[in-house]
Amino acid sequence: MTHTLQQLSDLEDIRTLKHRYFRCIDTANLNELSELFTDDVQVDYRGGGYRVQLQGREQMLEFLANSFNADSLARHHGHMPEIRFTGDDSAEGTWYLEDLFISLARRDCTWGTALYRDRYVRMGEVWKIAKTEYDRVIEVWEPLREDIKILSHYLSRHGRKLADCTDNSRFLTFTEPG
Amino acid sequence: MTHTLQQLSDLEDIRTLKHRYFRCIDTANLNELSELFTDDVQVDYRGGGYRVQLQGREQMLEFLANSFNADSLARHHGHMPEIRFTGDDSAEGTWYLEDLFISLARRDCTWGTALYRDRYVRMGEVWKIAKTEYDRVIEVWEPLREDIKILSHYLSRHGRKLADCTDNSRFLTFTEPG
Amino acid sequence: MTHTLQQLSDLEDIRTLKHRYFRCIDTANLNELSELFTDDVQVDYRGGGYRVQLQGREQMLEFLANSFNADSLARHHGHMPEIRFTGDDSAEGTWYLEDLFISLARRDCTWGTALYRDRYVRMGEVWKIAKTEYDRVIEVWEPLREDIKILSHYLSRHGRKLADCTDNSRFLTFTEPG
Repeated sequence: MTHTLQQLSDLEDIRTLKHRYFRCIDTANLNELSELFTDDVQVDYRGGGYRVQLQGREQMLEFLANSFNADSLARHHGHMPEIRFTGDDSAEGTWYLEDLFISLARRDCTWGTALYRDRYVRMGEVWKIAKTEYDRVIEVWEPLREDIKILSHYLSRHGRKLADCTDNSRFLTFTEPG
Repeated sequence: MTHTLQQLSDLEDIRTLKHRYFRCIDTANLNELSELFTDDVQVDYRGGGYRVQLQGREQMLEFLANSFNADSLARHHGHMPEIRFTGDDSAEGTWYLEDLFISLARRDCTWGTALYRDRYVRMGEVWKIAKTEYDRVIEVWEPLREDIKILSHYLSRHGRKLADCTDNSRFLTFTEPG
Repeated sequence: MTHTLQQLSDLEDIRTLKHRYFRCIDTANLNELSELFTDDVQVDYRGGGYRVQLQGREQMLEFLANSFNADSLARHHGHMPEIRFTGDDSAEGTWYLEDLFISLARRDCTWGTALYRDRYVRMGEVWKIAKTEYDRVIEVWEPLREDIKILSHYLSRHGRKLADCTDNSRFLTFTEPG
């Protein structure tokens, strides 16, 4: 298939949109995150022992602020996009996530992989995330090793303090691992 | 160098081809995998203690079905492509692999990195993998930690059952680590 | 935004430049690395317990040759570029690093993530790295597990021997973790 200049540019823009998303969650950059979603963004993350379901930018930002708090170390790397246009101003994308999440309070680590299925729309000149879902491929839990040393921890300075977090459980259903 | 629209589109297509490959092996998606190779695909993977050599789509699919079985957890992420055209309908690509493979039967984990060298050809309108090789940069083996919990395991539901696997050793030579 | 053919081609070339950088450091490919930087490249890596500051291709190559020595296993994967043109022949880029570095002499492992901010310039027909900086998001240190086995170790054959390394401490300041 031969793409147009506009389509090739759109592929660059859509990839950069999602790249910004991953950089901003792991650094609790709420200001920049607020630009990346449609007002009515739909979210459905189907994890190993949990399911996250929420609607709208406000819920999403609150969920992310609570999740990427000052007690956490987070690595979310989205790889290998497969993007398909569904119209002049809409597209779908598959991404393959590699993630690691350490909770210092719980002294545990969850890591794994997942497959995202997203929907993107152009609003004016700018692409936004309208829908994002994932299903887990791998999810592994383990206690944090006793002998590690944390030498850099960006979220400890930039993430929301645990005491200021609101309850994320309103967005969560706990499910059977599988 | 200034690429043509066709070349830029081809770069997108070739990347997506390989992205699909990695997504499909880790999810044992044999149907989709069958579309990605030429009939006479050539494979040569030079690992730490093994070498995989095979020829043709049929052997490749059988090798992958046996490898990504229901007893395994697999993460294969191909990064940082360097793609060069060798003709209007042919190209070569270098990819930098990050992989992790857990065998629950053996209770062990092998992880590392490798450099792929691939050859792609356009068949009709569609790019296919005609040749794929890799050399290891890092390969590390370790016993699985006793205290981990597997919370999501996609291949346990979608991979070939161990009892149905055929013997992959016909594709394998065992070599000195190095 | 609609990019021109030249800009889209430049995005491909700039990405490939950085992809080559990561492949070549982990494989101690000093010859190819020497092509990737401007003569006066500026480097500032702000890590957990260290800061690397140096100037010029010669210092950079010496620093890299000492770092990626035969005693080391290194994985440096640059992900999710966000590239912005600042002129016809200049651009800036953000990359999200995932890295792991094992020292067999010290029997330890340092791993984590960082955000690169680079500056690229076109010299003749070729893009080069003119400036590269990073700040750590995560840096974790841990002793190497006793029970691992190294099955492939490319740098042991291609990296500079420890006995031939010069002192990298002239490029380093040791800082408080944070």
